[in-house]
Amino acid sequence: MTDEAGFDVIAIIGVGLIGGSLGMAARERGLVKHVIGIGRNETRLERAKQLQAIDEYTLDRQSGVEDADLVVICTPVGEIVPAVRDISSSLKPGAIVTDVGSTKTEVVLGAEAEMPDNAHFVGGHPMAGSDATGVVAGRADLFEGAAYVITPTERTDLAAMNRLRRLADALGARTLVMSPQEHDYAAAVISHVPHVLAAAALAVADEVEEKRPGEIFSIAAGSFRDLTRVAGSSPELWRDICLSNRDAIVSALSRFEAALAKMHETISLGNAEDVEKLFQDAKRLREELKRSNG
Amino acid sequence: MTDEAGFDVIAIIGVGLIGGSLGMAARERGLVKHVIGIGRNETRLERAKQLQAIDEYTLDRQSGVEDADLVVICTPVGEIVPAVRDISSSLKPGAIVTDVGSTKTEVVLGAEAEMPDNAHFVGGHPMAGSDATGVVAGRADLFEGAAYVITPTERTDLAAMNRLRRLADALGARTLVMSPQEHDYAAAVISHVPHVLAAAALAVADEVEEKRPGEIFSIAAGSFRDLTRVAGSSPELWRDICLSNRDAIVSALSRFEAALAKMHETISLGNAEDVEKLFQDAKRLREELKRSNG
Repeated sequence: MTDEAGFDVIAIIGVGLIGGSLGMAARERGLVKHVIGIGRNETRLERAKQLQAIDEYTLDRQSGVEDADLVVICTPVGEIVPAVRDISSSLKPGAIVTDVGSTKTEVVLGAEAEMPDNAHFVGGHPMAGSDATGVVAGRADLFEGAAYVITPTERTDLAAMNRLRRLADALGARTLVMSPQEHDYAAAVISHVPHVLAAAALAVADEVEEKRPGEIFSIAAGSFRDLTRVAGSSPELWRDICLSNRDAIVSALSRFEAALAKMHETISLGNAEDVEKLFQDAKRLREELKRSNG
Repeated sequence: MTDEAGFDVIAIIGVGLIGGSLGMAARERGLVKHVIGIGRNETRLERAKQLQAIDEYTLDRQSGVEDADLVVICTPVGEIVPAVRDISSSLKPGAIVTDVGSTKTEVVLGAEAEMPDNAHFVGGHPMAGSDATGVVAGRADLFEGAAYVITPTERTDLAAMNRLRRLADALGARTLVMSPQEHDYAAAVISHVPHVLAAAALAVADEVEEKRPGEIFSIAAGSFRDLTRVAGSSPELWRDICLSNRDAIVSALSRFEAALAKMHETISLGNAEDVEKLFQDAKRLREELKRSNG
């Protein structure tokens, strides 16, 4: 099967929204002969099997990966490197291990250090997902049209990377290749910093809310609701992202603070032409974003 | 009709989305006997009449307001005070003049200075609207459930304020009373600063986009699209808002920059508990917002 997009046996560690959807998608598209789900909770794994995300399951990571040609680690970011450590000595020669973590530099370098010489780690980040969690929210079409970033390093085996890339393509994703550092800075700019901005905007609004309870939140415009929507997601998840992607986030925040200070000055000086240009540039970039992204 | 919510004659200067919807809503709810539309473009005024937003129209501001018990100025923010100046000597004794401008301090103080002694200015800001513009987008239910802020000063006639308030209530709006300064700071926090943040976020993303064209925008997460959506609106409108509400925006930006700097430091220090608390606070405030606002 090596020339094709699929794998004979795929093991998925952590069968939640992403892991479950990956199993469903690969099975439905005939990209795999057998999917083994590996987890800690038997009830959830049984549910994943009923939902056709996996063919069988086990609670034992070592035996679960023994026959796998591809192991996909879908745990929270902080547990990816420990998972690689757990399975490292049980991998089949030539096996490919990938992850779906939303930050990459720390994860990829840590995972590479744990891998045996005769198997290959290739970092990945399918940018699919939703507010929903768990395999019950899984969908065989989750990756269709979604970006799937693959993050090779100098140590990455190119044949292994290309096999992962063909799988992502076959799942209907748009595959992009970036270094882990490029990925992390881009993710900081387009996902992690917006989350911090949402938190800061809510903190400033709360200062007003405390003086006149019930007012500022009740008049919040659509733009404020849009800006802060993301703050509804899991604090633990965002804590882990901030810790794992700290350097890139801090660097993107600095760039953002510089851009904001410049706009602050422009508004403060109050030159009509300069102020209008600020919003013209924003509108042009927003239209560019819309064309690339919808 | 003085004890009731309505007015015998309402003149609307600027019959676009807000002005047109106000006419439709007041007519449909029996809150007015006669609505005069005042504008500059006869084709658009004719269209407003066809859409039942107004009963008749004129291009002449002075004669248009002569019989009006209530004049509603729905021009762009920068044209409100000149409009008050235009109509000032033609107002009926006891007439009430209001506006629907999205910034208030400069407008209300300027309008008050232009008013004759025997008529009353009361500033207002119905927080309804949409991306659409023009009377063709008007809806009789536009104000239902929307916040309608009324912004009295020390000089405001209380009876006139209460009549405007009853009208807003009868249109189905949730009426709030704030000083123009309180309104403007709140508007800066919940609407104007989010717009500046969107512009800054797009500028930082564009730095990456320029290095690797087509990539960062194509992987932009939902939070980035949410944050930057507002940047699609009119640069001229936002220029005027920034010029008119400069002091409040600059002051809100400073508070925002301070909150962001604190979060930057927390993330930079990388203490897991502190980072998690940052996102826990944001989630709690977001839930509070959702309860007050939907």
